Amino acid sequence: MKKREVKTMTLFTKDEYLERIRKTKARMADAGIDVLVVSDPANMNYLTGYDGWSFYVPQCVVVATDAEQPLWIGRGMDVAGARHTTFLNEDHIIGYPDDYVQNPIKHPMNFVADKIKTCGWEKRAIGVEMDAYYFSARGFIAFQKDLPKAEITDGNLLVSWVRLIKSDDEIGYMKEAGKIAERVMQTALDNLSPGVRECDAVAAVYQAQMSGTEKFGGDYPAIVPMMPTGEKTSAPHLTWTDDPYQSEQAVNLELAACRHRYHCPIARTAYLGRKAPEKLERLAAVTVEGLDLTLDTIKPGMRCEEVELVWRKHIAKAGFEKESRIGYAMGLNYPPDWGEHTASLRPGDKTILAPNMTFHMILGMWMDNYGFECSESFRVTETGCKTFADFPRKLFLKP
Amino acid sequence: MKKREVKTMTLFTKDEYLERIRKTKARMADAGIDVLVVSDPANMNYLTGYDGWSFYVPQCVVVATDAEQPLWIGRGMDVAGARHTTFLNEDHIIGYPDDYVQNPIKHPMNFVADKIKTCGWEKRAIGVEMDAYYFSARGFIAFQKDLPKAEITDGNLLVSWVRLIKSDDEIGYMKEAGKIAERVMQTALDNLSPGVRECDAVAAVYQAQMSGTEKFGGDYPAIVPMMPTGEKTSAPHLTWTDDPYQSEQAVNLELAACRHRYHCPIARTAYLGRKAPEKLERLAAVTVEGLDLTLDTIKPGMRCEEVELVWRKHIAKAGFEKESRIGYAMGLNYPPDWGEHTASLRPGDKTILAPNMTFHMILGMWMDNYGFECSESFRVTETGCKTFADFPRKLFLKP
Repeated sequence: MKKREVKTMTLFTKDEYLERIRKTKARMADAGIDVLVVSDPANMNYLTGYDGWSFYVPQCVVVATDAEQPLWIGRGMDVAGARHTTFLNEDHIIGYPDDYVQNPIKHPMNFVADKIKTCGWEKRAIGVEMDAYYFSARGFIAFQKDLPKAEITDGNLLVSWVRLIKSDDEIGYMKEAGKIAERVMQTALDNLSPGVRECDAVAAVYQAQMSGTEKFGGDYPAIVPMMPTGEKTSAPHLTWTDDPYQSEQAVNLELAACRHRYHCPIARTAYLGRKAPEKLERLAAVTVEGLDLTLDTIKPGMRCEEVELVWRKHIAKAGFEKESRIGYAMGLNYPPDWGEHTASLRPGDKTILAPNMTFHMILGMWMDNYGFECSESFRVTETGCKTFADFPRKLFLKP
Repeated sequence: MKKREVKTMTLFTKDEYLERIRKTKARMADAGIDVLVVSDPANMNYLTGYDGWSFYVPQCVVVATDAEQPLWIGRGMDVAGARHTTFLNEDHIIGYPDDYVQNPIKHPMNFVADKIKTCGWEKRAIGVEMDAYYFSARGFIAFQKDLPKAEITDGNLLVSWVRLIKSDDEIGYMKEAGKIAERVMQTALDNLSPGVRECDAVAAVYQAQMSGTEKFGGDYPAIVPMMPTGEKTSAPHLTWTDDPYQSEQAVNLELAACRHRYHCPIARTAYLGRKAPEKLERLAAVTVEGLDLTLDTIKPGMRCEEVELVWRKHIAKAGFEKESRIGYAMGLNYPPDWGEHTASLRPGDKTILAPNMTFHMILGMWMDNYGFECSESFRVTETGCKTFADFPRKLFLKP
């Protein structure tokens, strides 16, 4: 194999990666998993530093309880990217030949299974991420066929749960994302005006997301900007059109900033007029009060479901209710989602809050034909919680 | 179920969707598939019009040979988006309850399996997209378990192959993407300069992608802008940093524009200096000649592998070779890839070119420590081929 010639650009110390791997192995032991095949790009990044837009082909990081360093296995042309971005030794970075790509006869997971045999792990309990976006059913079948003596088991979200409590260095990147998020939201508000095309307002938001601040630039968020208006506000995941914004309409701004793949989502609502309808103003007041109150209540030791209960009781007094969860763990991620799919602020979630857990609390209140949303990304501190962005919580009027 | 109250915004006529479904059913019959569960967001869009950033939760379109209209099945909150964007009748749009989302106990594909039973299809041959990004191994297992009497079979890429030949209306959107792509590339070149941070150049590119032209706006491409420079040009999928571009360095520009989810990728190389190294100039000349020659040769009736051979013979005369494929079918798509994973311009691909097939031909020539790339997106015409963008093919010098 060619000698490593490139400068490695890992964002964290090697010790931090090794500590993450140690925690992962402890969870693997609890779950009875000897070898974990990690296909989720955020989990791959978390364990090794690997960062690149290569997840459109199968790739993975393989963690074995009896090996200090994981293996990175990906497409041959991405080996250079793995050398650049991971802390791994050269002999732990393995590329598969390009004829495995989009080939109906053989699949990259056949190659990974061969590597597992080479390492002598073919009779072990092998965990795969059964519900990850970039581990396919075909990859799973390839494993079942090629590793008949292995016990193939579900390791979905195992690494994601390790990610729940962030290190101080991770928090540092999220604070930087928070600074960018303030500019992103201000840019959106500055560009919203009756007659402005949705696509042009979105273009300005993208510009702000990537240019970041004078000190540090931005990265691409895992979800595109959502700025729907009018009746489209009832359809949460529609993107933009060429239509101009119209006066006397509300606009939902579901935005985010990202720094080195760490996110700070932020949502606000604007009204294009001098005065919003009274019912919208009332809903905004109740929601913002509820957000303030709920954030004030959060402290380590509370359960996720208790946080949600504070909010639910508050809005019930005003005659409102909200069916869906009010927040979820987030941080490091890749498209199509910045959420970590672990802890949620919802009834039944018994996760106990601890310092340096990070959440996006999003209060989207959708009535029949009007709505309001306001969100904050925050970390749990030793005594309470602190938001990453500092931006007014209110209904913004844009005459 | 609530009466449909919203205006439908399908991009194509209902007849065009029905024709696509007819072709899909014909392929299903050939493959022995009675019911096809389509999870790929581009395929879902193609068959129904559905468009939204909701593919981070499981969803699908179900096509049955004995039903005229497919079913759209997705998250309850996305039903409104399906009403907005699809041609489907109200009773063919089905939402699953929110507690199926990210729930370790039950999976949205359990819900889909229940619907299949309700429709009386549980003993049929049911095709699923085994290698699609957004159909997971867990979803596959849910089907196996819940539909024990069905024959679960692989319908991967079945609809993608129907997409290979575009309609004139689809070509129309790709032409608009081509117009935007010209602006995107010009914006990139205008913003490249020694001392400019990579993130700021990328920000300008994003701005151009979304604002489009005065007449029509842009949509988010399926892949982020890639503008690597220096030694990072050897790692094809690394994204940007805060580092400033430096003089006497080459920059690869792998960009795209998108209109209503239809893409026009475009790649060029720039050199930040008054004069490029001679070897780079020579490589650029050979590559551009090869691109011109290969595009001039293309006509309906040729096989994909024959197109590649024209290129290969040309560069061999100059002493070069290229291992990887030189192009692939593309058009309608979502992250993480704009490629259709069907026909490729590579040895062994026997696909016969026909009018309105659309490809991205990308000639990336990577030597030890320098490289050049130039690409064109084109459609096959009745007599040859025509590119979507009109932009000079050369090595751009930026002093």
